[in-house]
Amino acid sequence: MRFNAGCELSYRVGSPTLFIFSLEIARTQAHRDISDGLSITPEIPLNAFTVPGLENRYFSFVAPAGRLVVRYEAGVDLHVFRRHPADIAETAVADVPLDLLPFLLPSRYCPSDLLGAFAAREFGHLFAGHQRVTAICNWIYDNVAYQPGTSGSSTSATDTLIGRAGVCRDFAHLGIAFCRALNIPARFVSCYAHGLQPSDFHAVFEAYLDGRWWLFDATRQAHLDGLVRIGAGRDAAEVSFATIYGAAEMDGMNVWIKPVGALDVPLIRTTEAISTSAI
Amino acid sequence: MRFNAGCELSYRVGSPTLFIFSLEIARTQAHRDISDGLSITPEIPLNAFTVPGLENRYFSFVAPAGRLVVRYEAGVDLHVFRRHPADIAETAVADVPLDLLPFLLPSRYCPSDLLGAFAAREFGHLFAGHQRVTAICNWIYDNVAYQPGTSGSSTSATDTLIGRAGVCRDFAHLGIAFCRALNIPARFVSCYAHGLQPSDFHAVFEAYLDGRWWLFDATRQAHLDGLVRIGAGRDAAEVSFATIYGAAEMDGMNVWIKPVGALDVPLIRTTEAISTSAI
Amino acid sequence: MRFNAGCELSYRVGSPTLFIFSLEIARTQAHRDISDGLSITPEIPLNAFTVPGLENRYFSFVAPAGRLVVRYEAGVDLHVFRRHPADIAETAVADVPLDLLPFLLPSRYCPSDLLGAFAAREFGHLFAGHQRVTAICNWIYDNVAYQPGTSGSSTSATDTLIGRAGVCRDFAHLGIAFCRALNIPARFVSCYAHGLQPSDFHAVFEAYLDGRWWLFDATRQAHLDGLVRIGAGRDAAEVSFATIYGAAEMDGMNVWIKPVGALDVPLIRTTEAISTSAI
Amino acid sequence: MRFNAGCELSYRVGSPTLFIFSLEIARTQAHRDISDGLSITPEIPLNAFTVPGLENRYFSFVAPAGRLVVRYEAGVDLHVFRRHPADIAETAVADVPLDLLPFLLPSRYCPSDLLGAFAAREFGHLFAGHQRVTAICNWIYDNVAYQPGTSGSSTSATDTLIGRAGVCRDFAHLGIAFCRALNIPARFVSCYAHGLQPSDFHAVFEAYLDGRWWLFDATRQAHLDGLVRIGAGRDAAEVSFATIYGAAEMDGMNVWIKPVGALDVPLIRTTEAISTSAI
Repeated sequence: MRFNAGCELSYRVGSPTLFIFSLEIARTQAHRDISDGLSITPEIPLNAFTVPGLENRYFSFVAPAGRLVVRYEAGVDLHVFRRHPADIAETAVADVPLDLLPFLLPSRYCPSDLLGAFAAREFGHLFAGHQRVTAICNWIYDNVAYQPGTSGSSTSATDTLIGRAGVCRDFAHLGIAFCRALNIPARFVSCYAHGLQPSDFHAVFEAYLDGRWWLFDATRQAHLDGLVRIGAGRDAAEVSFATIYGAAEMDGMNVWIKPVGALDVPLIRTTEAISTSAI
Repeated sequence: MRFNAGCELSYRVGSPTLFIFSLEIARTQAHRDISDGLSITPEIPLNAFTVPGLENRYFSFVAPAGRLVVRYEAGVDLHVFRRHPADIAETAVADVPLDLLPFLLPSRYCPSDLLGAFAAREFGHLFAGHQRVTAICNWIYDNVAYQPGTSGSSTSATDTLIGRAGVCRDFAHLGIAFCRALNIPARFVSCYAHGLQPSDFHAVFEAYLDGRWWLFDATRQAHLDGLVRIGAGRDAAEVSFATIYGAAEMDGMNVWIKPVGALDVPLIRTTEAISTSAI
Repeated sequence: MRFNAGCELSYRVGSPTLFIFSLEIARTQAHRDISDGLSITPEIPLNAFTVPGLENRYFSFVAPAGRLVVRYEAGVDLHVFRRHPADIAETAVADVPLDLLPFLLPSRYCPSDLLGAFAAREFGHLFAGHQRVTAICNWIYDNVAYQPGTSGSSTSATDTLIGRAGVCRDFAHLGIAFCRALNIPARFVSCYAHGLQPSDFHAVFEAYLDGRWWLFDATRQAHLDGLVRIGAGRDAAEVSFATIYGAAEMDGMNVWIKPVGALDVPLIRTTEAISTSAI
Repeated sequence: MRFNAGCELSYRVGSPTLFIFSLEIARTQAHRDISDGLSITPEIPLNAFTVPGLENRYFSFVAPAGRLVVRYEAGVDLHVFRRHPADIAETAVADVPLDLLPFLLPSRYCPSDLLGAFAAREFGHLFAGHQRVTAICNWIYDNVAYQPGTSGSSTSATDTLIGRAGVCRDFAHLGIAFCRALNIPARFVSCYAHGLQPSDFHAVFEAYLDGRWWLFDATRQAHLDGLVRIGAGRDAAEVSFATIYGAAEMDGMNVWIKPVGALDVPLIRTTEAISTSAI
């Protein structure tokens, strides 16, 4: 499936301000024939950085006072890997590659160290495998209200467990925290998401099962096979679409994703397991 | 039913230390023919105080350095008030007497203000009345492990919701917090509890329904009709059996309660609604 | 000094809603020749309640859907008790009357149990007395920014210690928490405050020293001898000017206080110790 | 300076348990002529992993039930880089290499996002540079008690700010959190520490200044020029000396470090700036 995705963000900048953006699509094997481009107004030279292994791309610059517009447009062939969920076992923690250790550890918004007993009681008895992580997503969907305005930039998974409301970011953090508490590596994924209404950046999560990263979306807001990845990280902090050091206010934001031409496979709220990760 | 109850507590006191004890049985209408006595070794003059309305009794003194032993013995006829749970409706918040307002408000260990959405989702749809508070107790019993050593003096109801383990104090705090979040007045009750194994001070809670306070024990550790009340308060802080200002270490504690003679009504893990409160 | 004080609050009520108001001035000995009156539009019969001992007055009613306006006007002679701060010693905790125990204990927004080491390090070495509480206020003034919009209804004193910003409510909570951590009884006071700009309800705190409650305002926003008390309580929850159960939105609020005629003593940012409490 | 360092850890293992150890010295440019060895009893094949860039080394294995002893011994020439603190400026956040972004972000135990106002008030006005981070260390040393037993595995920097007590781990977390709140990259460093009494693993932190990582120890417990690095990470979670999945209890622990022969430069509580990082 080929998608056109992109965004246009505008800011009023009060004084010279550092922007670090994470909004380019990741250069993974699942993303082929990428054609993309960036335009910054005014023109400013960029620093660019790609995280080895994860393939997240960041770019940064110091914007002068005044108006700033960042526009990104990309076309990409999204190749998803599908499998029947029942065929995906969990990877025993002893078999998790040591370079994935960070995704087993607690992070700022996913304090999984506090959730061991909780996760064991709710999910410990379930059959291990892809279906257990689906059960986690179902639990979140059933117990947490999707409600913009109820959470903020300091909201952690335990806050969400108490407050029982949040947005995609919070749903992902909670899913990640539960997985890690069960010794399943899990990470945060930012993306362009086909089907999301209204259109916006989206956040889902990946769990490492059977030697591969699989996508999960506890919000049920988007098509799992229509997610074009921007980046993956321990939690939202690492793949925030914009990290700003200075004095700037966003005054416009437009995010889009559209399939190109006829789809070879119709997008559906799939019940298949979906992976778009190289490993 | 007549009970003999009491305790003996001993301390090593390092320097002159203020002790405030709450371990005498309350002078409520449910407690009749009370005969009790206190002995302090060494002999120290006491200050005594009874909370108007609640009838909690406190006594305090400054103990000198050395060994301190406090022994309390009481005999009491416990008159419990029973009703069929299905006959007990909730009191509309507009009909709650204003002097009970404190029991609707959040307190240190019962931050009910954070649990509105949680309580509404879990219990909001249930039939209002005594049975809804029983449902809260069942939820706590099903979701929280009774596990000494997992909580401490700073553990709040939200901590317990995350950690999913605690002792009687934590179970009571969580029950109270849920009730208040549903606009049901609720308070913490310390007591001597027949049936508790091993014998110790116990904590349960009361909810105000249909114009009366009803007892609930989410731990299911004791007989609801065998609870001899010491005191009631907003949460554990108010009815701690010993509040100590100074340098002292407890080195012995013995707590007991026994029925006297043949019981007129056999104590059972009753399914009746039980009240021992005057109002 | 005679003051005229009052407020007019208006609400849009969506469906029948319980309002509990705490905005009448307290009937304490410091408030003499009180003439006050309340008007509710539409006319609704009230329940009224005065807290024994504290003399806080509450009134409540269920308002029908539609517009609600509550107007309160009072005239009062404020008799403040003054003493030189250096003459006010602390009351040893062993000499604190047992009925003040609640004001030594942690409460929802004043978790003093967590602040023992902090308070001991910052204030433990200071000379005990009124001046030590002034030192606490100075610390708060120096270390916390008065900044509307930075805190909310769930903000506790420990949150304020971390976030270092807040409003009068937060300053009072922090002062109370520090005092209690030092075994000084302390409570929250809501009031009409002469000198406050812009005019609003104000919150300060009282510490119990030398057998009397003394006023402190860590915000330095108002005249300590121009505070007309509404109520005192463990923390903000107990003396919220309006506690609402139902669906209502405030759409107007006007609060005022003005001295009547010539002042017998000019109001100043006094350095005297001020008490307006009966005991 | 050449050091011999090492440790012997023993465990009682209840059932097959995964151990991930981080206790080998890092293969950095500051560590030369390393000769080291590991012995595991019983013999178990290891998985080993070195984090690219950081050069932390991990090894892991599944231990069978029974007794486990891990012994590690190393000799190393420690080459420290020294500079006068006054010559070390801060790196403007816009000049921080993008691969260091993780060390600017909040992590589980260093929630720097909550400390912006705090850090700005306490340290914002200080002269930027190595001396500002020293001021942070001094503040921590002055305001937090070094007190074993006051903190645990879930204690974060904000908990330490409230509780005002902790151990090396907590001191490092707080230093890191303050640095990140000031936009100074900072990371946690585990090490063998000459001078530490009693001997144990130690934790310090590094701040990135003037294009290089510099060591800081807010505990003042060890010699900055006698730290043999094990690993660096976002916080303690990443470089825990032992991460255990299963049922095991440590029943013996011995950690040592000793200079070999005569020192070419005497170890002192140096006031120089010390770096042992390659970059």
